Amino acid sequence: MLIGNREMLRLSTTVRMLATRMPIPTELHNDLEDVANRMRISAIEMTCASKSGHPTSSTSAAEIMSTLFFHEMKYEVADPKCASADRFVLSKGHACPILYAAWEEAGLLSRDQVMSLRKINSDIEGHPTPRLNFIDVATGSLGQGLSCAAGMAYVGKYIDKASYRVYCLLGDGESAEGSVWEAAAFASYYKLDNLVAIVDVNRLGQSQETSLGHHVEVYQARFAAFGFNAIVVNGHDIDELINAYETARNTKDKPTAILAKTFKGQGIEGVADKDNWHGKPVPIEKIEAIKGKLHGSKKGKLTPKKPTEDAPAVDLKIGSIKMAPPSYKMGEKVATRAAYGTALAKLGDANPRVIGLDGDTKNSTFSEKLLQKHPQQFIECFIAEQNLVGVAVGAQCRNRTIPFTSTFAAFFTRATDQIRMAAVSFANLKCAGSHVGVSIGEDGPSQMALEDLAIFRAVPGSTVFYPTDAVSAERATELAANIKGIVFIRTGRPALPVLYKNDEPFAVGKAKIVKESPKDRILLIGAGVTLYECLKAAEQLEKEGTHCCVLDPFTIKPIDQELIMHHARRVGGRILTVEDHYPAGGLGEAVSAAVADNAGIRVHSICVQEVPRSGPPDELMDKFGISAKHIVEAVKKY
Amino acid sequence: MLIGNREMLRLSTTVRMLATRMPIPTELHNDLEDVANRMRISAIEMTCASKSGHPTSSTSAAEIMSTLFFHEMKYEVADPKCASADRFVLSKGHACPILYAAWEEAGLLSRDQVMSLRKINSDIEGHPTPRLNFIDVATGSLGQGLSCAAGMAYVGKYIDKASYRVYCLLGDGESAEGSVWEAAAFASYYKLDNLVAIVDVNRLGQSQETSLGHHVEVYQARFAAFGFNAIVVNGHDIDELINAYETARNTKDKPTAILAKTFKGQGIEGVADKDNWHGKPVPIEKIEAIKGKLHGSKKGKLTPKKPTEDAPAVDLKIGSIKMAPPSYKMGEKVATRAAYGTALAKLGDANPRVIGLDGDTKNSTFSEKLLQKHPQQFIECFIAEQNLVGVAVGAQCRNRTIPFTSTFAAFFTRATDQIRMAAVSFANLKCAGSHVGVSIGEDGPSQMALEDLAIFRAVPGSTVFYPTDAVSAERATELAANIKGIVFIRTGRPALPVLYKNDEPFAVGKAKIVKESPKDRILLIGAGVTLYECLKAAEQLEKEGTHCCVLDPFTIKPIDQELIMHHARRVGGRILTVEDHYPAGGLGEAVSAAVADNAGIRVHSICVQEVPRSGPPDELMDKFGISAKHIVEAVKKY
Repeated sequence: MLIGNREMLRLSTTVRMLATRMPIPTELHNDLEDVANRMRISAIEMTCASKSGHPTSSTSAAEIMSTLFFHEMKYEVADPKCASADRFVLSKGHACPILYAAWEEAGLLSRDQVMSLRKINSDIEGHPTPRLNFIDVATGSLGQGLSCAAGMAYVGKYIDKASYRVYCLLGDGESAEGSVWEAAAFASYYKLDNLVAIVDVNRLGQSQETSLGHHVEVYQARFAAFGFNAIVVNGHDIDELINAYETARNTKDKPTAILAKTFKGQGIEGVADKDNWHGKPVPIEKIEAIKGKLHGSKKGKLTPKKPTEDAPAVDLKIGSIKMAPPSYKMGEKVATRAAYGTALAKLGDANPRVIGLDGDTKNSTFSEKLLQKHPQQFIECFIAEQNLVGVAVGAQCRNRTIPFTSTFAAFFTRATDQIRMAAVSFANLKCAGSHVGVSIGEDGPSQMALEDLAIFRAVPGSTVFYPTDAVSAERATELAANIKGIVFIRTGRPALPVLYKNDEPFAVGKAKIVKESPKDRILLIGAGVTLYECLKAAEQLEKEGTHCCVLDPFTIKPIDQELIMHHARRVGGRILTVEDHYPAGGLGEAVSAAVADNAGIRVHSICVQEVPRSGPPDELMDKFGISAKHIVEAVKKY
Repeated sequence: MLIGNREMLRLSTTVRMLATRMPIPTELHNDLEDVANRMRISAIEMTCASKSGHPTSSTSAAEIMSTLFFHEMKYEVADPKCASADRFVLSKGHACPILYAAWEEAGLLSRDQVMSLRKINSDIEGHPTPRLNFIDVATGSLGQGLSCAAGMAYVGKYIDKASYRVYCLLGDGESAEGSVWEAAAFASYYKLDNLVAIVDVNRLGQSQETSLGHHVEVYQARFAAFGFNAIVVNGHDIDELINAYETARNTKDKPTAILAKTFKGQGIEGVADKDNWHGKPVPIEKIEAIKGKLHGSKKGKLTPKKPTEDAPAVDLKIGSIKMAPPSYKMGEKVATRAAYGTALAKLGDANPRVIGLDGDTKNSTFSEKLLQKHPQQFIECFIAEQNLVGVAVGAQCRNRTIPFTSTFAAFFTRATDQIRMAAVSFANLKCAGSHVGVSIGEDGPSQMALEDLAIFRAVPGSTVFYPTDAVSAERATELAANIKGIVFIRTGRPALPVLYKNDEPFAVGKAKIVKESPKDRILLIGAGVTLYECLKAAEQLEKEGTHCCVLDPFTIKPIDQELIMHHARRVGGRILTVEDHYPAGGLGEAVSAAVADNAGIRVHSICVQEVPRSGPPDELMDKFGISAKHIVEAVKKY
């Protein structure tokens, strides 16, 4: 989806919107205050019970949460994952006691459940995770929630075309994270008027006052400059909050930011607005004063509004996305990145909920092939990789889409924390990283991914594809769409010969033997460019009487331990791995670890050992020790 | 260094400063135009010769560069690393042909040198690296330069207390990176009036128009809201540029941003302001029209101003920083994170150029111990880890400081790309990551570093310390100050017994045997919490008749291959590694790789295999399989 600059909303940074203060009925006002104070009490009680946690970061947001959950938001208490319900993202994840208290107040969580906070057998964790059905994305690494919320809002507005709205509660401290501003720029560019960011400006960080303290007008100016309708409110004032949400609902073509001036520990006598109370329980007797402020309305009196059921049903069953088969000629030279783009476009044909996201590299990663065929299934995220991944994580929530993100593999390192958190979110996220290794050539080391395998292999539950040719790259992309979880597809820049027939079957964790003979005395394992180097080396060595078995692992995680072991034993226990990657965490270590528990098998690894430089791809592969010449030498020395 | 909010500069976001346009003498004007056009020609010629590169991204900045390098900046052509010289950071690194052309124009680089662009034996690389003496930091991964520049400016203003100024040229596309806004917030908070950010707003990204196109007023509003004196200029107008630099020089307590409206490919007929010309050479004959615009002034007529020699001499010889020895009692319980803080403060005593930087976690990482003793040697960077690392990289340039950065190890993942680029910068950067693994307990998986070893081991040339007790943690910190390069120190949350005497010697790459007997039949390797579990298991197994050798690796990279091999062979070839980390890239794979080339040695690894959860540390270590109980079982099954 592309929006031209010409239609870009005008950014009125000079207008200082102040919340209107239309009074609401006293009874409702008092009921909402009671909800806020009951949630305060619960948050204090649960953190006292767990002897750890963040009550003060929770109570600053009590009114924000009571008005959101019991006046503004539409959702189903019995069905928190309802497709049509409003979404809520607690970006300041450490304040989760107030979120648990809200769902207790709504009737979803029992007293026993919230009081099990932080216990090992409880899903009421120290920071929110989707082990709980009312949480879409894990938070706790700060500054990530707004990207996820923007991804949900984008899907709501442009893909679901539904009326649900997305609310994201941020802390002021975390607004120092650049990812917040990447998300803000994205949200305004795409006119996400169904998105509301609420910043709980409680002045105090973990170790000292934040850089902006209570200067809410600076936050306002920043959000306004980033294209938001930015409203300052007293975050403890029920009326101002309700009016601000209403203003947001009535604002077209702009997201809204509500800058809520609050006090950390608000409501807790002797603690509110004081330093040194971050992340620790307060004395339990503090709840007495709060109880004294209750107007007497009963829990359960206020119930949330029902959602408008207008989000379409979506069919994204795991394993259901079938792609037209590859159509290449054997030996034809095609880059795996180009094959990725071709496959992605075909997956887009197969299912309208397969979407592509890129960071202004679509003509290099070839994700533009999806844009060209299905513009409504493509989201340009510009040069902001943290937000690229965060938006994708938001987009996959509630199984609304299967997002394929792409950029240079080197630039996924920018989003390592977002990918780490995506794992904690159990997200269904696909990442295709192109331009790997020294074989990209002249652009030099800043553009070369040489640690990407280490990073993506470390992600719990991840699958890491490293297809060598175009056929296997297409199949990797198809498989990625059909397995759940975080998938990385490592694609290369050079165009290299197609090795496999179009009907060759590929599977996760299944390697291919591309050369073998009964005389083999060493097993060579390479992937991408280095597999071709292995084949060249094997041919040369064969002429000299040394026969090599050559294995293409296809997936680096899981690695095909069985086939590797079988052939390693067959050739006498000698393995040589060759990779366009640094030593740690890549192919060599994956293979070493896979065979480590077996005596009698040796692994020798060759790889890039130092920061490379600019130059032609072939010369670089030779200079940095991963060309056929070096393989031949290593085999002879083995 | 802390600046209170009360003294914070007022952010005048509503003031729209336009550049004054004081005309400069015609001859100077024409000379600077000629410099710009000669640099254009050179940039085109060198990219034609290399058949790749970014001429259009270069020519948009030609006037910015000619006015900076030949009118505004003070530097020594013969001594580009001069401590007192103004600094220049090319954040939009792909535009390096114009930078090389500037140094050619200044007389440092020869024609042959610039024409060797992107060749394998040339340091004139495709993106800038400090292999060239006039480059302080590598760029090419976008959005990182301003943090580095802010680090240099901070050192200039508060540590060197010198008059040099720092200029950073950014692209408009890269301004979508959140790291730019982290840097901007930092620069205004610390009133870095010696810092000038120039944004080359040439409208076009790699694959399409940027999100803001030529809306320079939006960039202006954003920088103003982030506390900059923000000035819009015509980026091809010599007079406006010169006046803007002068305004910046005369602005106190605020950094300046110059939003320069330019055209990509400016000066290249048929190419300027056109899409699809990113990152490719233009026809060489295009230079003829540019030659026709020359006024005829000669190269070498304009020479840069000399720096004011007011930066102090600094003594930071590698190996020179001696720390007072640790002073613990054996068995005393101390967290390694606390020992890190103690050591850092002592290093601060030893040398005033040892500085600490933290991201609002200083009371958890204990870097606050340095702040308390030497406030002028501490920089609070708030919750913005990309900028935290970027500022540190800037601060270490020209060997002005040794920066120790600290945050939760999990949050260093936010700065993975900055750390990657720090390696390409050959930076002397120290990172201390606390709160590793499931042993942090109740805060849950978002706060647990379980992939940090994989990430830091993958950094080329890095040293990775994983000290187990307080004595070794202090020594790791001392060693970190005394070796060049990127160092990671992995520290833990729990307070655990001191194992080593205060005078125990430690060295990089040298492990310790903490338990051994001639009867040993397995080698246990653990670090941090898992070393204590190994010891517990070994004691229990000993009672049952199975003797274990226990090894503390101290550094995970380099790993003490020799000592591991020696003991592995001694015990019969059986190694069991135990780590509070995911399987990939950690201790287990480091050990597996170290012994992989030797038949007869087996490695079995136990580690955290899935996304963990909240709970008490001991219960989590047991639940996720890394407690003494699991070690005992694994040894029995081996």
